[in-house]
Amino acid sequence: MQSAFFKLAKIIDFEKAQEFMKKQAYKAYSKKGEQIVEMNYKAIDVGANGLVKVDVDPSWAHLVDEVKVQQEVKYKGTPFVEAIAKPVNAARGDSLPVSVFNGYEDGTFEHGTTEYEKRGIGVMVPKWIEENCIQCNQCVFVCPHAVIRPFLINEEELEAAPEGVKVHALEAKGKEFKDKNMKFKIQVSSLDCTGCELCAEACPTKEKSLVMVPLGESLDAGEQENADYLFKKVTYKDDILGKSNVKGSQFAQPLFEFHAACPGCGETPYITLATRLFGESMMIANATGCSSIYGGSAPSTPYRKNDKGFGPAWANSLFEDNAEFGLGMHVANETIRHRIQAVMEASLEKAPNAIAALYKDWIEFRDDRVKSAQIRDLLVPQLQAHPSAAGADIILNLKQYLAKKSQWIFGGDGWAYDIGYGGLDHVIASGEDVNILVLDTEVYSNTGGQSSKSSRAGSIAQFTAAGKPSQKKDLGYIAMTYGNVFVAQINSNASAAQAIKAFEAAEAYPGVSLIIAYSPCIAHGIKGGLGKSGNQGELATKCGYWPIYTYDPRLEKEGKNPVKITGKEPDWSLYDEFLMNEVRYASLKKSNPEHAQELFNHNKKDAQRRWRQLNRLAQADFSNELEEA
Amino acid sequence: MQSAFFKLAKIIDFEKAQEFMKKQAYKAYSKKGEQIVEMNYKAIDVGANGLVKVDVDPSWAHLVDEVKVQQEVKYKGTPFVEAIAKPVNAARGDSLPVSVFNGYEDGTFEHGTTEYEKRGIGVMVPKWIEENCIQCNQCVFVCPHAVIRPFLINEEELEAAPEGVKVHALEAKGKEFKDKNMKFKIQVSSLDCTGCELCAEACPTKEKSLVMVPLGESLDAGEQENADYLFKKVTYKDDILGKSNVKGSQFAQPLFEFHAACPGCGETPYITLATRLFGESMMIANATGCSSIYGGSAPSTPYRKNDKGFGPAWANSLFEDNAEFGLGMHVANETIRHRIQAVMEASLEKAPNAIAALYKDWIEFRDDRVKSAQIRDLLVPQLQAHPSAAGADIILNLKQYLAKKSQWIFGGDGWAYDIGYGGLDHVIASGEDVNILVLDTEVYSNTGGQSSKSSRAGSIAQFTAAGKPSQKKDLGYIAMTYGNVFVAQINSNASAAQAIKAFEAAEAYPGVSLIIAYSPCIAHGIKGGLGKSGNQGELATKCGYWPIYTYDPRLEKEGKNPVKITGKEPDWSLYDEFLMNEVRYASLKKSNPEHAQELFNHNKKDAQRRWRQLNRLAQADFSNELEEA
Repeated sequence: MQSAFFKLAKIIDFEKAQEFMKKQAYKAYSKKGEQIVEMNYKAIDVGANGLVKVDVDPSWAHLVDEVKVQQEVKYKGTPFVEAIAKPVNAARGDSLPVSVFNGYEDGTFEHGTTEYEKRGIGVMVPKWIEENCIQCNQCVFVCPHAVIRPFLINEEELEAAPEGVKVHALEAKGKEFKDKNMKFKIQVSSLDCTGCELCAEACPTKEKSLVMVPLGESLDAGEQENADYLFKKVTYKDDILGKSNVKGSQFAQPLFEFHAACPGCGETPYITLATRLFGESMMIANATGCSSIYGGSAPSTPYRKNDKGFGPAWANSLFEDNAEFGLGMHVANETIRHRIQAVMEASLEKAPNAIAALYKDWIEFRDDRVKSAQIRDLLVPQLQAHPSAAGADIILNLKQYLAKKSQWIFGGDGWAYDIGYGGLDHVIASGEDVNILVLDTEVYSNTGGQSSKSSRAGSIAQFTAAGKPSQKKDLGYIAMTYGNVFVAQINSNASAAQAIKAFEAAEAYPGVSLIIAYSPCIAHGIKGGLGKSGNQGELATKCGYWPIYTYDPRLEKEGKNPVKITGKEPDWSLYDEFLMNEVRYASLKKSNPEHAQELFNHNKKDAQRRWRQLNRLAQADFSNELEEA
Repeated sequence: MQSAFFKLAKIIDFEKAQEFMKKQAYKAYSKKGEQIVEMNYKAIDVGANGLVKVDVDPSWAHLVDEVKVQQEVKYKGTPFVEAIAKPVNAARGDSLPVSVFNGYEDGTFEHGTTEYEKRGIGVMVPKWIEENCIQCNQCVFVCPHAVIRPFLINEEELEAAPEGVKVHALEAKGKEFKDKNMKFKIQVSSLDCTGCELCAEACPTKEKSLVMVPLGESLDAGEQENADYLFKKVTYKDDILGKSNVKGSQFAQPLFEFHAACPGCGETPYITLATRLFGESMMIANATGCSSIYGGSAPSTPYRKNDKGFGPAWANSLFEDNAEFGLGMHVANETIRHRIQAVMEASLEKAPNAIAALYKDWIEFRDDRVKSAQIRDLLVPQLQAHPSAAGADIILNLKQYLAKKSQWIFGGDGWAYDIGYGGLDHVIASGEDVNILVLDTEVYSNTGGQSSKSSRAGSIAQFTAAGKPSQKKDLGYIAMTYGNVFVAQINSNASAAQAIKAFEAAEAYPGVSLIIAYSPCIAHGIKGGLGKSGNQGELATKCGYWPIYTYDPRLEKEGKNPVKITGKEPDWSLYDEFLMNEVRYASLKKSNPEHAQELFNHNKKDAQRRWRQLNRLAQADFSNELEEA
């Protein structure tokens, strides 16, 4: 554009303007590699040479955006969405009268408001080629925005479905679906998709089952109508395969969707997964950082309730106290639950038998997330039918606390390794039943890319232009020193199965659990963009950069080694390739090759040392832990 | 007194008064054990029954404290001491005009002002029985206040000595003193002694070489005159045995003395030792806590210079940022030293040969604490003689930075494990050449005794009256996870030799070093008082409560195991005895025996698990670290 402007406006000699523009492009982009500079040069040349005169029809000044009007009608939201969310999103928030916030004085915001945004920002969106599909659901697992989902459709649901669903749906594959007469369809919500391509890249079939097509083509094919039907009218049938495997877990409803994270974000698939696994019971304390922005950018709330009205409760706290904030949520909750137990114990003899039996059950299973929710579902109607039963008034008042909550503490590495670490350590030492998820991008992402203690030697960042001189802190190993903390280092691009198992084990562990999740990020500058982060993420583990493992203290108590490493011995020969695939490393090589090589060697040697230390731990004999118990 | 008052005053029925007093004593002291209650009962009885009428000579109202006047003359201090320190210590600070602070506007306080206080608070002080002494210097090592010192006295010094020195000094024992014609004397500065008895308890001879006698007896025997002569006029001959052994290290001058820590303090012997080893070069950042109070309670400064004018520079920062504060001192210092190097490099060709040679030497040895100081001693006079030599003006201006500093960061466990831990971790991760000393009392001592993450299961503290439920954090193991941090866990009562070696290795290690020092404290409530902390401290390691070890990353790089445990396998049968020797544990046993036993088992099991884990590490094969190097 700038080039075209100077060519047309002739305010200075165009040759000179071109020279200045190229000099500036070199200055701005030479650190990002020659290729980027060349692309800029080319743009400057093309901009000036490709001028075409277009005559504009004067009536265009009065065009009406019919699609937008249609959408306004079609995706009409709740009163909150219409009165607050939409005006705020349209940058008309300052025109709202205070009175519209009536009912929201306590600062809570309505859940699941992102579904009404339908931003339509994906220039290209995936198209499902059903004849190639093996129904593995891997495309769904990697989707950062939960816009592509698999559906199991029963006869009744199929009957009411749009034509597009009927035509394209496959027979559901697998012995579990035999005689169930169910159809399977992969469905993208075209207007929610950001076009990151991760799904198409992740598709494992030889002839791809997903190809990227222009948004218009997808809409013309009626995919948005299909999505509107399937996402809202077809049930999420997650009980057939269970949630403990990649395919099965993806049939569950994500309770985190359509948020504003970068297209291809490597953090959000972990959160989506967690909400599929335990979303009904989650309470989340979220540290400041990317996850607090895409997690709740007022008025958009991507966390939502399911049809039963259950979903994550979420709040954001400061960088420096989020772990404590989450611990406080948990302690407050459990304190109220101790009170419920006291009331039940005092009421056991006085309450009717059926109710007393449920009180007993609850006291026994109050720390069991699934069972306590089942008991709640039985107990609450009983108490409502017998409001004068002993304990009924208090317990009904506290009924939201009957089901065991799954307490989570989310944050990035800037929070977990640095600014919030003092508090994180305090929580880790507490022994309380909380789960911590560290979305590790190895850099302060949201603040613009500064080094954290998670960053590695040789990576460049803001204020660390010469490459970070020191090694990465081993947060997982540090947590292991406590001996009573469940620790997992995961990388869903290397093993989605290990990631799911780690989440389930962490949630079930009755103490502190810490999951450190490798999260590709735009700040990494992956060659080809975040759409290629699947392969690069896989390489991270393969080359030894990011080993994946779990440490389960319960094994130690049984006299078994508590460390379980997933995957083979790394292929260290791939290490440099991994580094050079990312601008955070490659650019230093361009600007200061010798210094860079020194730091990269440091980087690799440190990874190798960590690997050896992890193996030393994984091979140690823990049998005397049993003898001494 | 109270009992006597009620007996005499008869304002209420004495039987009733006695009953109330005993009830109150029970309420106040029953948690501290029956023995304490009984002692209070006895005091109440004796107070009333032992009344003796004493007639007071009316002239006593006009007595003059002659001793005090003599002392004022004898211990006349520097202008700072006379004009500021003494009035402030006498609680007359508010009468000082602002003008007396002229020259101290930057907040620095004069070093070594405690030597003029001569508080005379030791009711009983040690008396040396020379015929029993084996000249081991162990009494000196344990002294918290550096009031008892060993002297090597040459002929000239002996000649000028007071009679008491001449009469009592022994021939210096050991092959190193053969033909040196030197005398040896253990000397206490009676008026500086607090009477804690640690020295007498530590004396290993069968017939004790130190016995406690009333202060008056010690003064009458002229010991203070002996001390005044030996402490100030006799040189500290620390080069004969070297400082790397217990006996030899104690011939060095302590540059930390006569402070106001509790009598028998278990922290201060470590600081005294450090100043004996490297005091000339130390810069100390001190976290808030006991060590910041006894380290610098204005106007008293126990840190001092030696005869050459060198001594520790000391400053206190906040609880929450002291590690960073110390790192900042180091970085600032080294930044100036980089500048010196740049100036020298630019001046190499232009400077006279002799000076250029010293510049070269300095550039080579600038990070060698001893050599860089030697080069300074040669270079500065040369530059002063040739002020126009290249670089001379700048380097003379910066001459205080020529010698490599020994940067230390001091604090207690409240700082290191809790409040300052986020920053401590940041410094540990920095890889910079700083030394961290954690004076671990396992409780917030200075603030009145609250649990820290260093406290153990079952210990009681403020707000933890029911015993701490969770285990102690393993700070040493956490630091080891970095792989490039020198770590030592020490206990001078278990092995003074290991403590000295750890200090020397930490100081020499060119990166972060962390020393965690077991420090008996009044908050422990050791049976018999802090005077008995020597045996109890020894038991701490013997029973497995506090294993001592070093972790030296340099060994790992040589393919050797980096962990070296000192001492034998613990005798776990002594564990309960250790706990029951201290009120912090014993009192819970009294108030809630079952709960206490449960927590004590937790405490012991945790210590055993840590021991096994330490051994797993100490037995692991590190030979592949060499192959891969």
